[in-house]
Amino acid sequence: MEKTLGELASWIAGELHGDAQLKITGVAGLEEARHTEISFVVGPKYVRKAHESRAGALIVPPGLRDIERPFIVSDNPYLAFAKILKLFSHKPRVPLGVSPKANIGENVQMGDEPSIHPLVFVGDNTVLGDRVTLHAGVYVGAGVQIGDDTLIYPNVTVLDRCIIGKRVIIHSGTVVGGDGFGFAPDGHSYFKIPQVGIVQIDDDVEIGANCTIDRATMGKTWIQRGVKIDNLVQVAHNVVLGENTIIIAQVGISGSTVVGKNVILAGQVGVTGHLEIGDNVRVGAQSGIAKSIPPGQSVSGSPAIAHRDWLKNCHIISRLPELRRTIRDLEKRVAELEQALDS
Amino acid sequence: MEKTLGELASWIAGELHGDAQLKITGVAGLEEARHTEISFVVGPKYVRKAHESRAGALIVPPGLRDIERPFIVSDNPYLAFAKILKLFSHKPRVPLGVSPKANIGENVQMGDEPSIHPLVFVGDNTVLGDRVTLHAGVYVGAGVQIGDDTLIYPNVTVLDRCIIGKRVIIHSGTVVGGDGFGFAPDGHSYFKIPQVGIVQIDDDVEIGANCTIDRATMGKTWIQRGVKIDNLVQVAHNVVLGENTIIIAQVGISGSTVVGKNVILAGQVGVTGHLEIGDNVRVGAQSGIAKSIPPGQSVSGSPAIAHRDWLKNCHIISRLPELRRTIRDLEKRVAELEQALDS
Amino acid sequence: MEKTLGELASWIAGELHGDAQLKITGVAGLEEARHTEISFVVGPKYVRKAHESRAGALIVPPGLRDIERPFIVSDNPYLAFAKILKLFSHKPRVPLGVSPKANIGENVQMGDEPSIHPLVFVGDNTVLGDRVTLHAGVYVGAGVQIGDDTLIYPNVTVLDRCIIGKRVIIHSGTVVGGDGFGFAPDGHSYFKIPQVGIVQIDDDVEIGANCTIDRATMGKTWIQRGVKIDNLVQVAHNVVLGENTIIIAQVGISGSTVVGKNVILAGQVGVTGHLEIGDNVRVGAQSGIAKSIPPGQSVSGSPAIAHRDWLKNCHIISRLPELRRTIRDLEKRVAELEQALDS
Repeated sequence: MEKTLGELASWIAGELHGDAQLKITGVAGLEEARHTEISFVVGPKYVRKAHESRAGALIVPPGLRDIERPFIVSDNPYLAFAKILKLFSHKPRVPLGVSPKANIGENVQMGDEPSIHPLVFVGDNTVLGDRVTLHAGVYVGAGVQIGDDTLIYPNVTVLDRCIIGKRVIIHSGTVVGGDGFGFAPDGHSYFKIPQVGIVQIDDDVEIGANCTIDRATMGKTWIQRGVKIDNLVQVAHNVVLGENTIIIAQVGISGSTVVGKNVILAGQVGVTGHLEIGDNVRVGAQSGIAKSIPPGQSVSGSPAIAHRDWLKNCHIISRLPELRRTIRDLEKRVAELEQALDS
Repeated sequence: MEKTLGELASWIAGELHGDAQLKITGVAGLEEARHTEISFVVGPKYVRKAHESRAGALIVPPGLRDIERPFIVSDNPYLAFAKILKLFSHKPRVPLGVSPKANIGENVQMGDEPSIHPLVFVGDNTVLGDRVTLHAGVYVGAGVQIGDDTLIYPNVTVLDRCIIGKRVIIHSGTVVGGDGFGFAPDGHSYFKIPQVGIVQIDDDVEIGANCTIDRATMGKTWIQRGVKIDNLVQVAHNVVLGENTIIIAQVGISGSTVVGKNVILAGQVGVTGHLEIGDNVRVGAQSGIAKSIPPGQSVSGSPAIAHRDWLKNCHIISRLPELRRTIRDLEKRVAELEQALDS
Repeated sequence: MEKTLGELASWIAGELHGDAQLKITGVAGLEEARHTEISFVVGPKYVRKAHESRAGALIVPPGLRDIERPFIVSDNPYLAFAKILKLFSHKPRVPLGVSPKANIGENVQMGDEPSIHPLVFVGDNTVLGDRVTLHAGVYVGAGVQIGDDTLIYPNVTVLDRCIIGKRVIIHSGTVVGGDGFGFAPDGHSYFKIPQVGIVQIDDDVEIGANCTIDRATMGKTWIQRGVKIDNLVQVAHNVVLGENTIIIAQVGISGSTVVGKNVILAGQVGVTGHLEIGDNVRVGAQSGIAKSIPPGQSVSGSPAIAHRDWLKNCHIISRLPELRRTIRDLEKRVAELEQALDS
């Protein structure tokens, strides 16, 4: 594929400086880019690398102009890069139809232009929207609803009655709608609490590989519009994740916790059950959240505290031996003072 | 489905107060319940919510009587709720038989009333008990034994020679009997130690989604009766989990560790190898266990200490900056005292 | 199977003491071994157990001779044990051919002596080396390359264009080549950054069950020769893992981090993105790595510090209440001194 620099500038709505007819064959990082490729500079920190780069053109933020080659100014060079990468890598979807080697249940409603690969299982009474793709090894239970343009990678499991929106992407190995972990102690062992709820995943959600999104005990576990979940994440029964929230790999969220909008939980965070995490909260990697968090706070640590305080504490902890020496020294000096005063 | 309040009272062996003929159509939480549904109050903390609830009847603990509607007194309202939920949600199992699209090996012993779905693989010489359910995408290796009434969800893998008891439930994506992680350094790289043991899972065990239960190097990895394991849990080779032990999501237990009965490991706990965790031990979320723990103890933290001490330490750590100020202040005051005494 | 002690001694290149004709039927741990089996002693710590063992012969390190039965001296008894275990447990591979129930795409190059089981999916233009084994439920995408003697367990997913070397072992449920987690904020939601790179796995790598190895945004995520990865490990886009590095269960490594050779990351470690972890680094369990680490260091804690310092800090933290009491006592004594001096 080949685009002119002018085409790229209008694709990202950027301000072009240089030859609009320059041919660009691809996009790459500053170090990898060749002279027919475009690269990008997210900020002043990368100016030196930009000068050393062999890229034929650059996307730069406003203010960065001394670049010695054609460039496009963009308010958000990273986003512009993503859009150009999409332009160059896009392959039109060619619907496969329904493979005769797929197992389709009774009374399944199939939308237009499906791609249902071999070795797929779809249960009875399930409703698939238009342009749904189910790769080989995908299991979709009975009574499931899947919206238009949703893409499900190989070996994903979606269990009975779950509801999945439009333009959702689910990566391989993820399990949607497994039983929530609920057992009532009866004195000597445990009685399984039936998990009769569902999982509802709204439009434009993306879920990584080998995640587990449990169905609700009653009602629904609810992943709201635009949520992005990385790999190996655990979402327990009746959890709610608010719009555009970001969950990094290996996070675990316990039952009935409600997470707000635009929250970021960094990798390996653990959240206790029945909490409320407010909108725009940011939680540092490996933190342990055992209390609800008001909107807008940044917290870190296990148990988590305000991020600023956590940084201070980490600093002090790294100097605890020194602090202990100071205390021992003080003890000695105070004892000497006491003795001096006594005599 | 519809039950009378009297039927429900005898189903949970509770003491009925009110109209035995009242029709109940379902069970729900206090906030969701409608006037034909029953709800439950686990303790005095929920009395206000109970008063506000539209539920037509309530299950309450002994002593809570001022409820202004029909109620059933139960010593364990949570268990009673679970039992009624089971009553209302129960669907009789309809055996599917063996799908012609399942791949069944040679010399497989099939029990009565099987449900072997399409796209299942069962290896040679495997023995399946009565009323076993294997959903689509399940892989069962060669020489495996699976007990009566065991239910295996889609895309589970059970590898060769593993032994699974009766009434076991295994959720999607879980791998039983992968190789333990064993390598002997030979000076420049690693020699793979064959993992020739098995996994044995006893009766009434439930294992969540996307767990990994490794086979033993020699002998067996052993999950004993009644153990309940949440999602994304790692159980390494030769681990033993004692009866009715509870393992919450994302816990990892290293090789050859022996966990006692009725233990609770909360979410994201890590346990080093070759340890003994005594009966009735409780471990707080995200703790790191590097030493054996005597029976009955509650521990938390990484490295873990007695839970009570951990709470104290967390409190002190959250005030470390204050403590440091105090120390600096003391240094100054002691220096002044020394100077005063000198002069 | 039956071997003579003499055969075993030459198999492990050890020094035989005792009857070379002694028949040995297997290998087992000191406690489990029967009188026709051989066991092993890794060091002086196990001498008592060795004396109590019923094993008919022992592998011992140099210097341990007072063993009261035939023995073989080996510089590395653990490695010798692994080699003998392999000798006794080895089963010759019998190629299955290509099952008619496997789904093989167009233009697939199949090597000699394949074992392609039922319910396998192989995409178009994929190249399989000689003696490749793909178990039931394995998904291999289009344009994938898999080297000679590679073994892929059931329900593994390898997505388009990934490259896998020779003698690689991938355990069940693992996903190779899922999209990296990359989203560019556009002010109100997130724009998906296409992940157009691949995963390259070099020769002699072993990857555990239910791991996730993401494809690169551009370029490759690269697992180099001899790396061994345990279960449930997350390797993000563009990560490089150097030769013979060991990653224990539930570790997560964020995007673009480069890990050197012979590194050991213990269980549940988390590593931030864009770091460099030098050769021979050792990281303690549950540590959080937020800064690059020079070669050869041992670190622990979250955030991680030198392992030695971490041990000291843990000791002090476990005595924080005592330290606080000392400080309070000092405050009182200093106040008394001040008063005494005042008066």
